[in-house]
Amino acid sequence: MSDILHRIGVEHSSPEQVYDALTTLDGLSGWWTEKTSGQTDLGGVIEFRFGPGGFDMKVTELDPGRLVRWDVVDGPPEWVGTSVQWDLRQDGDYTIVLFRHEGWRDPAEFMYHCSTKWGTFLMSLKQLLETGEGAPAPRDVKISDWH
Amino acid sequence: MSDILHRIGVEHSSPEQVYDALTTLDGLSGWWTEKTSGQTDLGGVIEFRFGPGGFDMKVTELDPGRLVRWDVVDGPPEWVGTSVQWDLRQDGDYTIVLFRHEGWRDPAEFMYHCSTKWGTFLMSLKQLLETGEGAPAPRDVKISDWH
Repeated sequence: MSDILHRIGVEHSSPEQVYDALTTLDGLSGWWTEKTSGQTDLGGVIEFRFGPGGFDMKVTELDPGRLVRWDVVDGPPEWVGTSVQWDLRQDGDYTIVLFRHEGWRDPAEFMYHCSTKWGTFLMSLKQLLETGEGAPAPRDVKISDWH
Repeated sequence: MSDILHRIGVEHSSPEQVYDALTTLDGLSGWWTEKTSGQTDLGGVIEFRFGPGGFDMKVTELDPGRLVRWDVVDGPPEWVGTSVQWDLRQDGDYTIVLFRHEGWRDPAEFMYHCSTKWGTFLMSLKQLLETGEGAPAPRDVKISDWH
């Protein structure tokens, strides 16, 4: 099994502010996709929608200012059964975000794509918190023919 | 062992043009780091330098327009012994670039950082080929306190 890993540092932002951007519909729709709906509390299911489809994430762990974890319960077959974890901590002027999308069964080309795409969405999260303006779908950064 | 995977599509560019950007000092210094020197032919060692240090890559495979492979022979201990592979192919208007940095012994925090950083450098490669202007170090995109 392979994981997608990323690390960013969000300047002049507290772990609580980053946590809010990961656990509220308003925050999530500001950096990942404008079409975000559902329940963001523990045990809830959040529906993220994009042009060609989307993902349903069940919120399985929440530790305010420290940890968010989602299980993918619906979406592309490659994603169902995988998990996304966010670890947050303060480090000087930065909130450090460690991101892990784990449980991929096969490192197929779609996983390569999702890895790069997650990177650009993490930069969108950083940008949202630092400048007030992220780049969520459909205004997301295009990386290839697959969007 | 874990791998860092990425996929981008470079629009209006041939695999041969992308291959050139990966196998010439002029190309490499246009998207990764301006301080690139050494030998880019098979068996040669390319030296990539950044503010805090750098990487020496031995060119171990070259297949024009299709494949480039490097072994890391000097640099941070986490990198030495790992390999970087670039697979290229044409797909309609795009050159598809599949990137794999493999052989990491441990998914430490530095690997999370390098994964995101590779993503931004791949976007720099795409930008160089599509617009004529990349974002190599020291003009690279800052992602965190670690640069």
